[in-house]
Amino acid sequence: MSAGLDARRFIREKRDGGTHRPEDIAAFVRAHVAGELPDYQASAWLMAAFLRGLDEAETGALTRALLLSGRVFDWTTLGRPSADKHSTGGVGDKVSLVLAPLVAACGVLVPMVSGRGLGHTGGTLDKLESIPGFRTRLSPEAMRAQLDAIGVVMVGQGPEITPGDGRLYALRDVTSTVEFEPFIVSSIVSKKVAEGAGAIAYDVKCGNGAFMKTREDAVRLARRLVATTRALGPTAAALVTDMSQPLGRAAGNALEVRESVELLRGGGPADVRALTLELAALMLELAGAEREPKRAMARAARALEDGSAWEKFLALVRAQGGDPTSVERPDGLPAAAVTVDVPAAAAGALRAVDTFGLGSLVVALGGGRRSKDEPIDPGVGIVVRRRIGERVERGEPLATLHLAADDSAAVERAARCFEIGEPPEPPALVLERID
Amino acid sequence: MSAGLDARRFIREKRDGGTHRPEDIAAFVRAHVAGELPDYQASAWLMAAFLRGLDEAETGALTRALLLSGRVFDWTTLGRPSADKHSTGGVGDKVSLVLAPLVAACGVLVPMVSGRGLGHTGGTLDKLESIPGFRTRLSPEAMRAQLDAIGVVMVGQGPEITPGDGRLYALRDVTSTVEFEPFIVSSIVSKKVAEGAGAIAYDVKCGNGAFMKTREDAVRLARRLVATTRALGPTAAALVTDMSQPLGRAAGNALEVRESVELLRGGGPADVRALTLELAALMLELAGAEREPKRAMARAARALEDGSAWEKFLALVRAQGGDPTSVERPDGLPAAAVTVDVPAAAAGALRAVDTFGLGSLVVALGGGRRSKDEPIDPGVGIVVRRRIGERVERGEPLATLHLAADDSAAVERAARCFEIGEPPEPPALVLERID
Repeated sequence: MSAGLDARRFIREKRDGGTHRPEDIAAFVRAHVAGELPDYQASAWLMAAFLRGLDEAETGALTRALLLSGRVFDWTTLGRPSADKHSTGGVGDKVSLVLAPLVAACGVLVPMVSGRGLGHTGGTLDKLESIPGFRTRLSPEAMRAQLDAIGVVMVGQGPEITPGDGRLYALRDVTSTVEFEPFIVSSIVSKKVAEGAGAIAYDVKCGNGAFMKTREDAVRLARRLVATTRALGPTAAALVTDMSQPLGRAAGNALEVRESVELLRGGGPADVRALTLELAALMLELAGAEREPKRAMARAARALEDGSAWEKFLALVRAQGGDPTSVERPDGLPAAAVTVDVPAAAAGALRAVDTFGLGSLVVALGGGRRSKDEPIDPGVGIVVRRRIGERVERGEPLATLHLAADDSAAVERAARCFEIGEPPEPPALVLERID
Repeated sequence: MSAGLDARRFIREKRDGGTHRPEDIAAFVRAHVAGELPDYQASAWLMAAFLRGLDEAETGALTRALLLSGRVFDWTTLGRPSADKHSTGGVGDKVSLVLAPLVAACGVLVPMVSGRGLGHTGGTLDKLESIPGFRTRLSPEAMRAQLDAIGVVMVGQGPEITPGDGRLYALRDVTSTVEFEPFIVSSIVSKKVAEGAGAIAYDVKCGNGAFMKTREDAVRLARRLVATTRALGPTAAALVTDMSQPLGRAAGNALEVRESVELLRGGGPADVRALTLELAALMLELAGAEREPKRAMARAARALEDGSAWEKFLALVRAQGGDPTSVERPDGLPAAAVTVDVPAAAAGALRAVDTFGLGSLVVALGGGRRSKDEPIDPGVGIVVRRRIGERVERGEPLATLHLAADDSAAVERAARCFEIGEPPEPPALVLERID
């Protein structure tokens, strides 16, 4: 046990509903990372905290302790503002692929560290790796050099970042203490702050395809993410956005890269384009590159239209070992062997989408992992043809499945994810901004 | 993980306030004992159960699972009724030393398995080991042979008894999940039932020298001990008894053996004698050796008076390798180098005793352990000269300390444990019987 921390007393304090001193939380994390405090004590504390709660100060102290358990990047010596974005995860959320080069094209450094798919949601790293040759592991030195040269890196988290969170997260996973807001907040924020961006924009998704099902929960999480981040230094804000249907049309790794390329070339679905621009403007504003939201938005839109975002993306692909022709040519990315339409069983308006169901289907098709280290099939996925509120005739395709082989069960499963009926109120995409 | 148990789901069920199925509790204990369910999952469950609670059925299932995690003795083939007693622990509680040979002298087998001192309380094993040569570890075969020959054994718990409780208890100790009634009940009852007696009498102590401070807590614990034991087969009942002052006069290992010898020879303090006879009568009744409480009491009293209990004690000492002359001669047991009186600072009645303080003082003098495997000094201890309600003149001894060396701080510490003033209502010794 670390000097100064009596683990039994610490556990008992939380068990009895007490409030920890910040220095005790710091000592707890230090001792756990150092292997001096065994997992069986850490897990008893995790459950006590889960059931008794952690207040804002405790959550802040835990976040700081996790942050300081590893390396904290500092890009200020590069002499330019920097910004990053974190999304709580959804289906078809390929925003990062467009956003990172777009914001870099506007002159703000983007040191973006992303994750892999989790549960029914996709992950930016998996999407990037469907680009032949693209490397997502860079040394800190290589990250710095690339940031300095082209202003953007997109990598996975190295072991030097928040090892305390890594140990605690592994334990939370096997002790049923994952779904607890202070743990979620401290895990996300410690990692994001460690990555060294001076400004952090959060995209907190809500709806049936997100981890937060209700707007109320999403807004509360957004507030805590923003407050906890600011307490550690970076500027931060959050958008609470809709995830009651997939974002854009494509869900599946290579399919989403293809849609991102369309967006970077000025096309693509309106919803992803709009959300990407909102987040880009927010990052420019938070980083101090633009004061006025309107001017920030205009600058971001210009970078999409004038091709500079696309050029930045090509430079990024080249810098990280990817083959740029694979994204320039329509057939350059992995593709599924079979495509099958999912026909509408009746005429009417699309009332609702089981977004969780669609995300889980993509995982089942091979586009995600059910267990760590499972290989994924980059070509498979689904392309949705209707958005909520749009009309469809009986037999018209609601979606197209991209499959490794014929699979009628998958088609039936997909069909069950769409509800046809009277036209509903179409959901707003950006629900709220939290500062 | 054991087939049939999803540990994460099991933990989550309790975390969310659910009720476990008995078969899941059994699978949990089996998997933990087998080393298939890691301690970090067990400890998360311990904390969840601590904070969410376990109902009577769950406590019963846990007790049965712990019981079945090891060997369960069966003495029925010896053809005689059997009984055992468990005390929740106090200061000066030497009842077992007298009770076991006494009940055996009445024709009921006593396969008594005892523990060591815990915290401020003494332990029967430590007391027995102050008799030169006395062995407290016997093989199951030796236990059976001795029970058959002389009707009584007094031993420590072997590793074959409730290993599931051993593993869980070690984990409770380091995760601050000790003081939880369902865990306390399942730990006590599983061990007692595994020892194979057909009848179990519980002595649940309450007051400032006991683990249960209030009568209400003690009665609730007594009820759960009795009900949980009966559900597993043995007959059981409990006495809730006073521990607002030491039992008898002596606290300290050899000092308590000496007082037990006095009792076995028909003398000794009235309170220990009375409680021992109450418990003996209860055991005879529960074992079916006597139907009428009055006749049971008379039979027990006779065995003390006619010397048969004393003869049985000598046979026990001999059978387990002890030197009988050490208990027959007044100077045969280890003795402290120094005895010092603790004088009363004022005249008056003894109003209250800090029993916890006296018990802790005996430990501090070397008569108990502060950490496992610490050696103890059998000779040291305290002999109390006044009971609550009795009068003392200024300067008269309230107690006598038996010390390894002169120690004025110990005398002052002891003096602070006695409160002199107006005569109080003397406490009743047996507060309640729970069937």
